[in-house]
Amino acid sequence: MQTELERQGVVVHTGVEVQRIETEQDRLCVRGSGGAEACADIVLVAVGVEPRTALARAAGAELGIQGAIRVNRMMETSLPDILAAGDCVETWHHLLKQPTYLPLDTTAHKQGRIAGERAIGRSARFAGTLGTQVVKVFDLVVARTGLRENEANAAGFAPLSVEGTYWDHTVHYPGAQRVQMHLVGDPATGRLLGAQMEGPVQAAVAKRVDILATALYHEMTVEALSDLDLSYTPPLGSPWDFAQLCAQDWSTVARKGQAHISGKEDAP
Amino acid sequence: MQTELERQGVVVHTGVEVQRIETEQDRLCVRGSGGAEACADIVLVAVGVEPRTALARAAGAELGIQGAIRVNRMMETSLPDILAAGDCVETWHHLLKQPTYLPLDTTAHKQGRIAGERAIGRSARFAGTLGTQVVKVFDLVVARTGLRENEANAAGFAPLSVEGTYWDHTVHYPGAQRVQMHLVGDPATGRLLGAQMEGPVQAAVAKRVDILATALYHEMTVEALSDLDLSYTPPLGSPWDFAQLCAQDWSTVARKGQAHISGKEDAP
Repeated sequence: MQTELERQGVVVHTGVEVQRIETEQDRLCVRGSGGAEACADIVLVAVGVEPRTALARAAGAELGIQGAIRVNRMMETSLPDILAAGDCVETWHHLLKQPTYLPLDTTAHKQGRIAGERAIGRSARFAGTLGTQVVKVFDLVVARTGLRENEANAAGFAPLSVEGTYWDHTVHYPGAQRVQMHLVGDPATGRLLGAQMEGPVQAAVAKRVDILATALYHEMTVEALSDLDLSYTPPLGSPWDFAQLCAQDWSTVARKGQAHISGKEDAP
Repeated sequence: MQTELERQGVVVHTGVEVQRIETEQDRLCVRGSGGAEACADIVLVAVGVEPRTALARAAGAELGIQGAIRVNRMMETSLPDILAAGDCVETWHHLLKQPTYLPLDTTAHKQGRIAGERAIGRSARFAGTLGTQVVKVFDLVVARTGLRENEANAAGFAPLSVEGTYWDHTVHYPGAQRVQMHLVGDPATGRLLGAQMEGPVQAAVAKRVDILATALYHEMTVEALSDLDLSYTPPLGSPWDFAQLCAQDWSTVARKGQAHISGKEDAP
């Protein structure tokens, strides 16, 4: 992502602690540790998301993870007849089978619908999140679903993580793009735990991650991914989609009993 | 597809019976019913695929649908120790739970692998095809998985088919493209039976059809498609992916008990 930002002329500073922001000649200058300085017209402060729950708390609603409103899978709070949904509530994790805090637009829409169904007396249950996310950074798309290696470890799995570079479509057809894929699975059960991909916009990694999100929803094994009947035409794919090739690489490594082939640490 | 071909300068003749192909001044002229005529440097005759099974037949192998070699899901023919795979054999249909003839590259790869595993004494079983296919015609992509309405009817279902036009991503982000989606389901059970989509290359319909192929593999209901945690970012999708929006439209129609809303006949 940093490479793509720099390729587009963005100067990236990492590992810098911001100390102050000062106005200088109608511009804003951010100054930080190690003498780092960046001046600009606009400074955007992105420090994460916190649930805004003062009203719910004042009303006596039970709060949960990271201060989010505790809800069950019908979006019921601890208060009778009070439903809650969206970025202010706990989110059921489909894979971990426990609540988490993961405020995402897609989840908020699903929860809102469950709350709505519930409000008019219908029964509906939130199926849960898989943490599927995608971001477009200029011409690069980075997407994920399920657990990353460090998250799988934290959840008590002993995951096997395999990383590789693949082509988005058959190389004999012009315009093939390189994509990077990282697949996390549980060698004890063979189960798929998560996947991360990055590639240029035309490699459609956002929707490829969705194939894996659908597989994760059904608790598929990594090996069974190769059974999926995915579409193929030379300009758009391969007889085995690269997600299946990566799954096959994972199975090969799992059979050999290696713990990790990428040799890279999973970013925090 | 015809619109896209004509937009690219291709002259399309349909409903013409080809009567003869003649050489005229180093060119080939195709002449057909109703006075149709088209001259060109190359004439490509595309009349479908037939399994080439003379060798297998001579060896005494049992043949099946459309003359393809009869195999079980381990790719075993009726002859001991003779395995067969690819465009010459019957293909197990994952949804119909019966053999069909559907020669596709992806299927051939899967079957070849099963035959290979079987040949070295391992147990492996072909999971079956869903008839997932995609074709790129200039800037247009047309893709399908599962059954079309007419196929679902032929298979003994009483399908409900819903068709709609959707945006590939949120319209507030520039560059949103219109896509056409057709969803076939079984109102008796709520089950998804198939989907067809068409849209420009950047709408990634090939990989969106694969989300539905993965859902079909797991015999999902149309309604449950909305539970899938699919990726979203404004330039690439919507909080509900359009496949989910189409599924919601299907459910609305199914609840109202209408048989068909598109008003269009399914092409043969």
